[in-house]
Amino acid sequence: MNAKPSSSTLDFDVQRVRADFPLLSRTVHGKPLVYFDNANTSQKPLSVIETVDRHYREHNANVARAVHQLGEEATAAYEGARDKLATLINAGSRNEVVLTSGTTQSMNLVAYSYALPRLQPGDSILTTVMEHHANIVPWQLVATRSGATVKAAPIDERGELIVEKFFEMLTPEVKLACVTHVSNVLGTVNPVREIARECRRRGIPLVVDGSQAVPHRPVDVQALGCDFYAITGHKMLAPTGTGALWARREHLQAMPPFFGGGEMIREVRFDGTTFAEPPHKFEAGTPNIAGFAGVGAAIDYVQSLGYDAIRAWEHALLGYATERLREIPGLRIVGEAADKEPVISFLLEGAQATDLATLLDLEGVAVRSGHHCAHPLMQFFGVPATLRASLAFYNTREEIDAFVAALLKVRKLLL
Amino acid sequence: MNAKPSSSTLDFDVQRVRADFPLLSRTVHGKPLVYFDNANTSQKPLSVIETVDRHYREHNANVARAVHQLGEEATAAYEGARDKLATLINAGSRNEVVLTSGTTQSMNLVAYSYALPRLQPGDSILTTVMEHHANIVPWQLVATRSGATVKAAPIDERGELIVEKFFEMLTPEVKLACVTHVSNVLGTVNPVREIARECRRRGIPLVVDGSQAVPHRPVDVQALGCDFYAITGHKMLAPTGTGALWARREHLQAMPPFFGGGEMIREVRFDGTTFAEPPHKFEAGTPNIAGFAGVGAAIDYVQSLGYDAIRAWEHALLGYATERLREIPGLRIVGEAADKEPVISFLLEGAQATDLATLLDLEGVAVRSGHHCAHPLMQFFGVPATLRASLAFYNTREEIDAFVAALLKVRKLLL
Repeated sequence: MNAKPSSSTLDFDVQRVRADFPLLSRTVHGKPLVYFDNANTSQKPLSVIETVDRHYREHNANVARAVHQLGEEATAAYEGARDKLATLINAGSRNEVVLTSGTTQSMNLVAYSYALPRLQPGDSILTTVMEHHANIVPWQLVATRSGATVKAAPIDERGELIVEKFFEMLTPEVKLACVTHVSNVLGTVNPVREIARECRRRGIPLVVDGSQAVPHRPVDVQALGCDFYAITGHKMLAPTGTGALWARREHLQAMPPFFGGGEMIREVRFDGTTFAEPPHKFEAGTPNIAGFAGVGAAIDYVQSLGYDAIRAWEHALLGYATERLREIPGLRIVGEAADKEPVISFLLEGAQATDLATLLDLEGVAVRSGHHCAHPLMQFFGVPATLRASLAFYNTREEIDAFVAALLKVRKLLL
Repeated sequence: MNAKPSSSTLDFDVQRVRADFPLLSRTVHGKPLVYFDNANTSQKPLSVIETVDRHYREHNANVARAVHQLGEEATAAYEGARDKLATLINAGSRNEVVLTSGTTQSMNLVAYSYALPRLQPGDSILTTVMEHHANIVPWQLVATRSGATVKAAPIDERGELIVEKFFEMLTPEVKLACVTHVSNVLGTVNPVREIARECRRRGIPLVVDGSQAVPHRPVDVQALGCDFYAITGHKMLAPTGTGALWARREHLQAMPPFFGGGEMIREVRFDGTTFAEPPHKFEAGTPNIAGFAGVGAAIDYVQSLGYDAIRAWEHALLGYATERLREIPGLRIVGEAADKEPVISFLLEGAQATDLATLLDLEGVAVRSGHHCAHPLMQFFGVPATLRASLAFYNTREEIDAFVAALLKVRKLLL
């Protein structure tokens, strides 16, 4: 993990890749941008930007509702994204992929349409202390309505899920288990396959938040063995307002419709409405068509690089960044799991995270400071906030050097 | 209404306007495109396309979560759209504008967060026969869950709401009234102000579907006097996956949160989560940031033309198109309200709507055929489908001539 990356050893031409991302060449406060806020949202390659642009210039129409040529082109772009997503995560069928506005909508769909009708007073939902609010609050909202409770499995000081404890907490009143694939704060990769196996053995459906996984590693939902898998488009090179929920066919079949509107019906009558089959049953209204055209281009881009190359480069960067940050006196890395993706949360003794982020911004370095939509995790570590540098395959060793230099500079100002 | 438009008499330079819409210059099946499917989705001006493009090239970041410069720019674009929407519809405050993915999400938010907790067995929701499914199915879904019913006020043969009948049906068990401002099939403009006055007198909140109104006419929600007003971005020049719900402040304050996730919370704890104030309480997760940057540009574009000019031109086109269509033997216009926006549904004796639309497409003419997400309205008129030509301010008299010529040609093929 601590190898220093270089294009010669890794056979990854990062400068060529960077040329595909126009935003990376911008300056901030007169300094070259160092964009290390990738877990918040990724930048977009030209192929995605141009696909969206071309969609509006040449193919814009509504989907599924028109027999005209433009409508067919727009529908091909939209349904094409579903095909590509299904292939990307190895779904058993394209009809198991519901297109949503992002992981938040995906999770709320599971909460309201799958969980809520099944929950009874006394039931519980098991999640973990390291979850993003999108994998906590939807469960709390439906638990409150049904008299159920939400409980959270603990993690250890390294930021790893205590898996035995999670299994212990899978008691008979647990009706749903929810875990993130990769922590947005710590980078920790959870052993989803092992967790899914245990959940399945006990007949408890498993929901996986994949927002931070799909940008970094190949995902095979069938091999993982989970029941639901949520994806965010904008964190994996695609436009904002895009995402997906993969679910096993039998779950989608059993789930009642959630949003009502156009496209999700078979026939609407005031004496009784009937509904379309999944996935369309869950896709009421006009979707983010141009956004999904961009999702298709984003997946093509990821696959043109290949996850092997992405992972090798990102892990070399993670190793190098970790090594460099450890040189800084008073800096503490929060989250040191054995298996982690390129996300580094840290604290600097004597300095507030927000002050640091503000000063780093003046040096052109974009990192996130705050609770990262993970209050319970902050509570666990006993801090109100961390700084987080989250990397992508288009980042470089030189940017890590610039980031560390900036950190040393602002550290002097604050301490 | 029957004046023939020309740029000299109307002082509207439609050719200059058309130059702003790149898609309008494309061909379909070798013929110049005649895009008359505007009620389905509008085309986008260059300023909107370029704003989205520039957003991804220069300003892309997540909103509200980062102190860095890029995050501030993205937040300014997103919150700027809220300001512009609030001004466009004369909301009492920007905090009364919840940004959504479109009218469907807006309606479902009202259904699940406002209506559902208030509905009791025996209650009812009043809507009308002319509604889009987005203003029927959400009410049916929450009515089913609560033992309430949905009833629909009738319309007359001209496609006008029978207002006295609507008022008669506002009986004490009605807990919510829902009406479209403008019919997506008939173009009928409903007397929302009068309806709102009567609802208010009886203490019944009124939801208005404004998707087909805002593209064509100025809307003042305070003057209308309704309680909720839903807007779709993609029908008014903006990107797909954008929309809004305006609601009176007291309703938003009283409504429990709906989607759980990031940004909608104050503090998340496993022993009790607290929520943000409206509108953020209803905006969980990363929104369609680039889309809303485009919403801002779309509103700027509408306001640069002005609704007066838009209306004058569109109504001249509507009059001309109506007159030309009446020349065609066997053609019956469905929807002849005194007050209507530029939408013309019609039937041609002896020909199926879908066959006609398919053949018209070969002539370059894009119209919609089908039920237009309005099954009950089709049932009222006793037809499975209509053809619908829906116009926008960038359409021309010459396009109407081309459309009528194409219609006469395909009529010969079919009859």
